Amino acid sequence: MSISLIKSHKSFDGLTSFYQHDSSVTKTIMKFSTFIPNKECSDKKAPKSKIKNAIIWLSGLTCTEENFIAKSGIQNLLKDSDTMVICPDTSPRGLQLANEHDSYDFGSGAGFYINATTNGYCEHYNTYDYIVSEITDVLKNNFDVVNYSIMGHSMGGHGALVLGLRNPQLFKTVSAFSPIVNPTRCPWGQKAFAGYLGNKNKDDWCKFDATEIIKAGGARSDTILIDQGLDDEFLQEQLLTQNFSDACEEQGQQIRLNYREGYDHSYYFIATFLKEHVEFHLNNF
Amino acid sequence: MSISLIKSHKSFDGLTSFYQHDSSVTKTIMKFSTFIPNKECSDKKAPKSKIKNAIIWLSGLTCTEENFIAKSGIQNLLKDSDTMVICPDTSPRGLQLANEHDSYDFGSGAGFYINATTNGYCEHYNTYDYIVSEITDVLKNNFDVVNYSIMGHSMGGHGALVLGLRNPQLFKTVSAFSPIVNPTRCPWGQKAFAGYLGNKNKDDWCKFDATEIIKAGGARSDTILIDQGLDDEFLQEQLLTQNFSDACEEQGQQIRLNYREGYDHSYYFIATFLKEHVEFHLNNF
Repeated sequence: MSISLIKSHKSFDGLTSFYQHDSSVTKTIMKFSTFIPNKECSDKKAPKSKIKNAIIWLSGLTCTEENFIAKSGIQNLLKDSDTMVICPDTSPRGLQLANEHDSYDFGSGAGFYINATTNGYCEHYNTYDYIVSEITDVLKNNFDVVNYSIMGHSMGGHGALVLGLRNPQLFKTVSAFSPIVNPTRCPWGQKAFAGYLGNKNKDDWCKFDATEIIKAGGARSDTILIDQGLDDEFLQEQLLTQNFSDACEEQGQQIRLNYREGYDHSYYFIATFLKEHVEFHLNNF
Repeated sequence: MSISLIKSHKSFDGLTSFYQHDSSVTKTIMKFSTFIPNKECSDKKAPKSKIKNAIIWLSGLTCTEENFIAKSGIQNLLKDSDTMVICPDTSPRGLQLANEHDSYDFGSGAGFYINATTNGYCEHYNTYDYIVSEITDVLKNNFDVVNYSIMGHSMGGHGALVLGLRNPQLFKTVSAFSPIVNPTRCPWGQKAFAGYLGNKNKDDWCKFDATEIIKAGGARSDTILIDQGLDDEFLQEQLLTQNFSDACEEQGQQIRLNYREGYDHSYYFIATFLKEHVEFHLNNF
């Protein structure tokens, strides 16, 4: 796997970097950002020897590889650790598929971490496989990382839960901010799944729905951490947090669900509680 | 002075907010952002009683009131203090002056914290007065703040130095990241000053040039803090840091100038060293 460095910024004695690579899964150029803590990285090359762990961050609708790395403050939280973060883009780019650029909640910027089966999209929008196989391959072969965990926000929180539940050995820890926990039951998820998976086989939808995975007996042996703002404007219609909580209680999946009074869906919320999530990940590598 | 809340986001137990108001100085609507630390702000109203101090942050070229508050991580640094931050926009908006929107380094997004004298601009681009009189008025009357300090980045670092040197009683502390210290000698400053002040009276230019102010005997009795990345792509041509350093040494102005190896001009640099700047300000209120 060949990756190209686009630019690097020294940050907190480490490096915040932006890369691109040819993806064999999406058949497009894909971009991602990283932060690698290192006290001796003045040559701007990614240091390989000391970093053993990677947190994979999955962003939400409309985001790119830049939002989290620019706004979350994670550099300050990882600077003294042996753990990097990698933030993939939220969809393939540079394509002209039907309806791909018509709305913020489908197509570009809205990959939903699924493997598409519909015409056109099935060639490129396989962002579930992209994370599971290609991002982990990049981490292993280009950054010498051996342990992975996963977290995300909103659509990316959905992605983190689904990927973490379906690959409990691959991802050592799972956490989410404001996740879409039951996409088959909310407008965002229904629109995206109809477009990517079609309407014929709704059973396929359940493979990419964290609540349905739990209901069907999927589980992790460790605790999943979730933070959810109670003033989140999408809580009632789109996120449906309680559905996941109820399913986990029924099925015996341990979760730590923190409802946060007064907090909304924004990166200001993420930045506030990110320290607890990072510590949760660092403690479980 | 009437200000209108546009939106608020609870952050680190405080509030990150965006406001607008009719400015009598710029004769436009002006926007600014704030972060107010407060443990009991769940009603989303700006709490007035406990916050006594404000850091005024001036942003650089192309920025709005949002960049610093979204990217710097200052909420985490102020959360337990009695100090708020206010981040004004970098120019008037909504006008159609000659050449106002043609380039990133003049006109909209590039107010340069001067008082313009040229045709058209003299009516609106008086952002020096806007900060000195109107922003402080907002802080005093709308937020009950009694102490002000000032810091900024690049064009905003220039603004912080000039405003702080010319108003040593008003601004208790001055600091800057990557400031344009000698605008009359660099392309950015020469273009902006020609457009805002005209080419006829170059003596006027010196009133808005920190290095020239120092050379002419202007000084503060306290130390000015500056951080400057050594990999900053604008250091040699635009920022001219050494000119200010030399003038301060000649004139006896105390500065603490930290050259930072490997750091560039970005917000990743600002975020890295912001803690030291915030502590410098908090210690001097």
